[in-house]
Amino acid sequence: MSSDEQKTNQQWGGRFNEPTDAFVARFTASIDFDKRLYAQDIRGSQAHARMLNKVGVLSDEELKAIIEGLDQIRGEIERGEIDWSIELEDIHMNIEARLTDRIGITGKKLHTGRSRNDQVATDIRLYLRDEIDLLLAEITRLQQGLLEVAEREADTIMPGFTHLQTAQPVTFGHHLMAWFEMLSRDYGRLSDCRARLNYSPLGAAALAGTTYPIDRAYSAELLEFSAPTANSLDSVSDRDFAIEFCAAASLIMTHLSRMSEELVLWTSAQFDFIDLPDRFCTGSSIMPQKKNPDVPELVRGKSGRVNGHLIALLTLMKSQPLAYNKDNQEDKEPLFDTVDTLKGCLRAYADMVPAIQSKGEQMREAARRGFSTATDLADYLVRKGMPFRDAHEVVGKAVALGVKTGLDLAEMELAQLQQFSDTITSDVFDVLTLEGSVNARDHIGGTAPAQVRSAVATARAQLAARA
Amino acid sequence: MSSDEQKTNQQWGGRFNEPTDAFVARFTASIDFDKRLYAQDIRGSQAHARMLNKVGVLSDEELKAIIEGLDQIRGEIERGEIDWSIELEDIHMNIEARLTDRIGITGKKLHTGRSRNDQVATDIRLYLRDEIDLLLAEITRLQQGLLEVAEREADTIMPGFTHLQTAQPVTFGHHLMAWFEMLSRDYGRLSDCRARLNYSPLGAAALAGTTYPIDRAYSAELLEFSAPTANSLDSVSDRDFAIEFCAAASLIMTHLSRMSEELVLWTSAQFDFIDLPDRFCTGSSIMPQKKNPDVPELVRGKSGRVNGHLIALLTLMKSQPLAYNKDNQEDKEPLFDTVDTLKGCLRAYADMVPAIQSKGEQMREAARRGFSTATDLADYLVRKGMPFRDAHEVVGKAVALGVKTGLDLAEMELAQLQQFSDTITSDVFDVLTLEGSVNARDHIGGTAPAQVRSAVATARAQLAARA
Amino acid sequence: MSSDEQKTNQQWGGRFNEPTDAFVARFTASIDFDKRLYAQDIRGSQAHARMLNKVGVLSDEELKAIIEGLDQIRGEIERGEIDWSIELEDIHMNIEARLTDRIGITGKKLHTGRSRNDQVATDIRLYLRDEIDLLLAEITRLQQGLLEVAEREADTIMPGFTHLQTAQPVTFGHHLMAWFEMLSRDYGRLSDCRARLNYSPLGAAALAGTTYPIDRAYSAELLEFSAPTANSLDSVSDRDFAIEFCAAASLIMTHLSRMSEELVLWTSAQFDFIDLPDRFCTGSSIMPQKKNPDVPELVRGKSGRVNGHLIALLTLMKSQPLAYNKDNQEDKEPLFDTVDTLKGCLRAYADMVPAIQSKGEQMREAARRGFSTATDLADYLVRKGMPFRDAHEVVGKAVALGVKTGLDLAEMELAQLQQFSDTITSDVFDVLTLEGSVNARDHIGGTAPAQVRSAVATARAQLAARA
Amino acid sequence: MSSDEQKTNQQWGGRFNEPTDAFVARFTASIDFDKRLYAQDIRGSQAHARMLNKVGVLSDEELKAIIEGLDQIRGEIERGEIDWSIELEDIHMNIEARLTDRIGITGKKLHTGRSRNDQVATDIRLYLRDEIDLLLAEITRLQQGLLEVAEREADTIMPGFTHLQTAQPVTFGHHLMAWFEMLSRDYGRLSDCRARLNYSPLGAAALAGTTYPIDRAYSAELLEFSAPTANSLDSVSDRDFAIEFCAAASLIMTHLSRMSEELVLWTSAQFDFIDLPDRFCTGSSIMPQKKNPDVPELVRGKSGRVNGHLIALLTLMKSQPLAYNKDNQEDKEPLFDTVDTLKGCLRAYADMVPAIQSKGEQMREAARRGFSTATDLADYLVRKGMPFRDAHEVVGKAVALGVKTGLDLAEMELAQLQQFSDTITSDVFDVLTLEGSVNARDHIGGTAPAQVRSAVATARAQLAARA
Repeated sequence: MSSDEQKTNQQWGGRFNEPTDAFVARFTASIDFDKRLYAQDIRGSQAHARMLNKVGVLSDEELKAIIEGLDQIRGEIERGEIDWSIELEDIHMNIEARLTDRIGITGKKLHTGRSRNDQVATDIRLYLRDEIDLLLAEITRLQQGLLEVAEREADTIMPGFTHLQTAQPVTFGHHLMAWFEMLSRDYGRLSDCRARLNYSPLGAAALAGTTYPIDRAYSAELLEFSAPTANSLDSVSDRDFAIEFCAAASLIMTHLSRMSEELVLWTSAQFDFIDLPDRFCTGSSIMPQKKNPDVPELVRGKSGRVNGHLIALLTLMKSQPLAYNKDNQEDKEPLFDTVDTLKGCLRAYADMVPAIQSKGEQMREAARRGFSTATDLADYLVRKGMPFRDAHEVVGKAVALGVKTGLDLAEMELAQLQQFSDTITSDVFDVLTLEGSVNARDHIGGTAPAQVRSAVATARAQLAARA
Repeated sequence: MSSDEQKTNQQWGGRFNEPTDAFVARFTASIDFDKRLYAQDIRGSQAHARMLNKVGVLSDEELKAIIEGLDQIRGEIERGEIDWSIELEDIHMNIEARLTDRIGITGKKLHTGRSRNDQVATDIRLYLRDEIDLLLAEITRLQQGLLEVAEREADTIMPGFTHLQTAQPVTFGHHLMAWFEMLSRDYGRLSDCRARLNYSPLGAAALAGTTYPIDRAYSAELLEFSAPTANSLDSVSDRDFAIEFCAAASLIMTHLSRMSEELVLWTSAQFDFIDLPDRFCTGSSIMPQKKNPDVPELVRGKSGRVNGHLIALLTLMKSQPLAYNKDNQEDKEPLFDTVDTLKGCLRAYADMVPAIQSKGEQMREAARRGFSTATDLADYLVRKGMPFRDAHEVVGKAVALGVKTGLDLAEMELAQLQQFSDTITSDVFDVLTLEGSVNARDHIGGTAPAQVRSAVATARAQLAARA
Repeated sequence: MSSDEQKTNQQWGGRFNEPTDAFVARFTASIDFDKRLYAQDIRGSQAHARMLNKVGVLSDEELKAIIEGLDQIRGEIERGEIDWSIELEDIHMNIEARLTDRIGITGKKLHTGRSRNDQVATDIRLYLRDEIDLLLAEITRLQQGLLEVAEREADTIMPGFTHLQTAQPVTFGHHLMAWFEMLSRDYGRLSDCRARLNYSPLGAAALAGTTYPIDRAYSAELLEFSAPTANSLDSVSDRDFAIEFCAAASLIMTHLSRMSEELVLWTSAQFDFIDLPDRFCTGSSIMPQKKNPDVPELVRGKSGRVNGHLIALLTLMKSQPLAYNKDNQEDKEPLFDTVDTLKGCLRAYADMVPAIQSKGEQMREAARRGFSTATDLADYLVRKGMPFRDAHEVVGKAVALGVKTGLDLAEMELAQLQQFSDTITSDVFDVLTLEGSVNARDHIGGTAPAQVRSAVATARAQLAARA
Repeated sequence: MSSDEQKTNQQWGGRFNEPTDAFVARFTASIDFDKRLYAQDIRGSQAHARMLNKVGVLSDEELKAIIEGLDQIRGEIERGEIDWSIELEDIHMNIEARLTDRIGITGKKLHTGRSRNDQVATDIRLYLRDEIDLLLAEITRLQQGLLEVAEREADTIMPGFTHLQTAQPVTFGHHLMAWFEMLSRDYGRLSDCRARLNYSPLGAAALAGTTYPIDRAYSAELLEFSAPTANSLDSVSDRDFAIEFCAAASLIMTHLSRMSEELVLWTSAQFDFIDLPDRFCTGSSIMPQKKNPDVPELVRGKSGRVNGHLIALLTLMKSQPLAYNKDNQEDKEPLFDTVDTLKGCLRAYADMVPAIQSKGEQMREAARRGFSTATDLADYLVRKGMPFRDAHEVVGKAVALGVKTGLDLAEMELAQLQQFSDTITSDVFDVLTLEGSVNARDHIGGTAPAQVRSAVATARAQLAARA
């Protein structure tokens, strides 16, 4: 089509003898997904225009026309009034063309002293910075929910597991505070990523900088970047920030997958430790009794796609020579989907966690059985002077008897226990209680209710300090 | 919203006390992406209905109503007349609800003896089988293009590289036949995957089979499956076929990334071995001289997302207990995008490859320089009786002289060569020609033009046998 | 060191002006890991020598010296009498140098008409073919164990899960046959991989073939390859077979990770469905009561490294130009570790599976609770004429009552059930039994004990046909 | 074997009825690889002992025996005098058993108030902290080398590429400073990782803390940790630090793969921009003329294994319930190999980079051709009043003429240029010079030699501030 040809050639001038193949035009265009960057693209363009005005490349009048023109285009986009054009390839050319339609030849001056290479690098950084801020807020909200429940459940006793075998009694609040800690590290990683990406590539132009007398520090400041980037070649070819973000996201999703696994276990008939409200579950079209923990399952599954996006970006960048290559256009979809996935999962968790209903009786019963205080018995024997290794052997034999008779340690007669060691006396039953066991672990990071409450208080202060 | 509540509860009956949270409903719904399976879903439902009729569960009249109703719904979907509903979660419930709207209570009977678990497993297998058939055809088309160019370029001499250093002269046709071989293995892998997935899960129901007197062999036959699957639990939880497909796709993309790397190198000013027509390239909005090999670059970049999808699915399935879990809903988007990416890249390549224009003179000149016939000189000395290791040393010294003087071996005086070994006589210049070098490698798989033509003929026969 | 320098330069002749840096020599050498290929290297060399003899390049005497020399070196290696040398870089040069030490100048003739590029490609294919044969045998052994247990447990009833929620009763034998099916597909994938790699690259030489009158079909035949490869450039640069193998391995490990997850769940105090013998478990140095399912846990964890190796190889090959590049040296360690991991895990499973002890009472009790026959009740109502959707609603309400009262459906009074639908009569209790439920799913792939026995018989025949 | 049985049971006491299967013992043991942690294990044990002494659990005499015993064992290990035992499973039990052999029953007291779960978590953190310090130093050394070369080559002009097509002239120094920037971000990521992992898990014991009156802050201080970790469950199950490290490592390797790709290109006959000294290259056993850039190729290839290890760890941790599971034993080998790979590659680069020899003439000639100053011509026209889009079109046509005639822009007659625009006058040739082009890009981050020198100075200051 000749209008197609004309449009296509408009971008690239006289060097080309034939128009782009129609399929190739579609195959190589990015407007379908990079239109999401419109707000950042406009913000970046406005800052660039102000800088050009400051250094004398644009008159005050020209600046005004550009700023207002872009504001109006933003409005058009948000009202859904723009027809995106494949021929114009990407968000940058679509907006620039629209601007020139609106304000005439002045619109074309906007591209002075920059190129799409530094423009897109700026857009993505602005975009990711915005999204990280939202994600940080969502992590904080989830952590606040955890603190609430952890405090409420500081005394609730459940079995702690290693190897999914009953290990020692812990409190449910203590367990939830482990989740809190994971998320605090995640918060730190996202914050570090934000700080590291917050430099302005604007002015790197195609790859070597520009011959115009630009003021990179000024446009950086307008866009609230810490400073301009230090090397133009690096500025247009670097996609580290996207990879670092996806790596941090993979860890968040890994953490959520672990929490999800536990929620799925805990809502099973076999564990029956908690209830999730019906509104977070779905049923079955065929089995009328089903109430499925869909939200944790789906979040667990979504860890897959985020790991995948991380690998997508690492593969993408592997052995690319400098500076910009078309390959880099592929950086956006994995990044966008990572952001969306993360936001959805964190939101679902932040909504759901405060609604978790613990079933204290079942938890307690599970802890009571399964010889969870065996270590306490060994420690008891050590305190009575037995070497730990021998104490371990004694308790092991008592457990073997329990397995055979179906009795937990606390349910045995004193005489039964004494057949394994006559240093056992009736005070043993104090250490075999669940309360005795958890209260005894009373040091920083330990499971004693007092420690859990103290950990919650410290954590509250940390969250408060974020604001 | 009460209409929301009503709709949501309709699926799951009386066990639930509150409606699904609105965000959760959106978060867990799959209709946005699984609507793509509509044709396969309808085809599967029609086969299921015919089977139910055969075994007496549906009357002829009921069958007719269902078949026609589904046909009409297919038409509505293809004409864009359906409003997909998030409340109805997925493509299966959307179509079933529409059917019941249309034909009344008979529509509800369609779900007899099946569940969404076996239904979706059937849909995806049908979908992937269809897509593999298209992909196989596209691979064949690309291979045909390669054969065309390889035959045309059977005598064109270029440097063969190892370590990207000039190694030995090869023919361009021979090089392209290496690409052909990679794609033949890819064809084989996709074919094997197709054969392995071509079993019907229909009748596995939720996980255990069904109490209705179904005839699984009959519905399998209607859907052109090889046979029913052998175990109902496995049938609803298996996603091997998607992973196997993505692994085969990753290899295809890896191959295309290697071809792309070579095209990018060959179109650089430094290599300048080929030209790609303008219609497969794009220019720069800022640098007027640029003609960029966008298609190969983008294809190379897209290898990233396919590796990513493979990891997404492997992560997804890792340590999932049987049978179906909600996690599995996440199998679709990576699979769909892998299919789309593969189709786009193969199409772009099948279109582009026949249009590659070789620059024979530049290729030949590059082969002429770079000491590419050094091995031939060593072989010449061996034939004159020198042990290979000594011949290697002699040639190495001649090359060192050439590096210093800027002369290639064939450009040296006989006397210059003889200072390294007096067994060299004037017939040496025959083996130092490029034609002599390539023609001498005249065995199966060798680079001699005669072998390339023979390889093309064999390959033609292979492609013909596919039809 | 001057002896270092001498040795290093020996390989490459006169072109180099300085010896390799000592760290670089270590960094780039592969002998530390590729020595594992010694047997295949020797086998390949002997076949190559026989071929050279057949085409007249080696005399009968020379052939004899080479064959015997290599036999003796194999013996030396197996007796641990060889000092591997970093200076000689790799297994190929180490063996060749040792051969020349032994039999003199004839040893040097062995390398005629080949290069290390086709040599290593041959070695790895031979190696992987050998290992695949061992792995196939181990899969078969594991499958035999599964059949044994599945047959024994064909009548043992357990809850079938979806979403880890009790879904419907299944038999334990049926569940194990799902595992069997996964492994059958794995067997197929490994077999396909074996068939596809079984072509001889020998004779491709460095990349272009050789000027010697070699007979590639003959050496291929001696090495039991199907045929020679069709293109020399492809032969030295292809690593598809390693990637295809690792992809198949990732699926095997994914399957084992799923089985492991289930074994870990089933041995937990909460599920308590099975016992693993003590010899497959380990204890805790601190908690005397612990008996941990270490083997399944470790196997589950090892799925990580195999996914990792797959990505390592895909990353490695991404966008490599033809033909051989040094990067490819990195193909071996991931491949070797994948093979070792797979062998260890399959062996552990093949040993362990027949020793699984089911706890029928606990399984049955778990199935009895959890409303697992709710679908059967709905089907019952459908058979009495109620539309399925209404039946689903009725049963949902009955379940809601059960949740509140703690009664399973079979434990309710008839009157209690009838308050939800008066079509329920006393025959309802037949369908609410576990036996009734499983026996009713009596079609191909269904969970009925009769079907499980039939599936076992079919599977036995499949295994028998492998031999 | 009965001694086997005895030994095995020694660890776990009386609960077990049969010894561990011999294969299982080998399969589950970690001593083969975790012995690498011996120094950290001993350091951690000594700190733990000092803490136990401080709180009164160990007497001064006992402490002295333990400290000295462990010092002696460290010596034995470093002198290779220890026989590691598979039966003792891991480094912790091997050292503890040796200690008890040496100092008797006091040795057994060392394990008071800790478990292997917190012990191994401590060991790995200490190990990784040590290694990160070495890696940071190696990055700094590599960066120093880059600064040296960049300063030397601040005026050397080469073509800058986008899409591997000649884009605009840059200086070689500027290009190397792009590499410097990448590494600075890598340095930052490793530093952040180090800070985040530097907390002491000691005292978390098996999972819940301990009943002994331990002082976690004191042992943390002795081990130079910032503080104790805040939650015992999290402390034994967290492997974030290893994943974060591997993600940072993947980015470093991705960067090195990009530099490697460029070095491989630049040493090709086609580019011929640089020489690498012979000591960093290797030759071919068959092709006497070859000098292969093995080091960059191998480093590029090694990016694969590091991406693989990252995926291995993410897969490993996916959906693991708390707290410790045996799966976690699999964290070590990927981590160790990542550290080793990184150290080797960084060392090779730090050694090699200062030895890169640029070929200024070839670089300059490549920049001179390829229309690299086309953008400068467009900018010239803009300064003369032409809108950029029109200028782009004019230059595009001039380039098209150049492609046809083989003349670069600077080689054309004025009259030839003027046929495209009569605003071109003889001063145009100033902007078409390479020096004019690079010098004109004179702003922060631009390619002008003055800017490169300034960037080097700033960078020097940054490195100095690290010390």
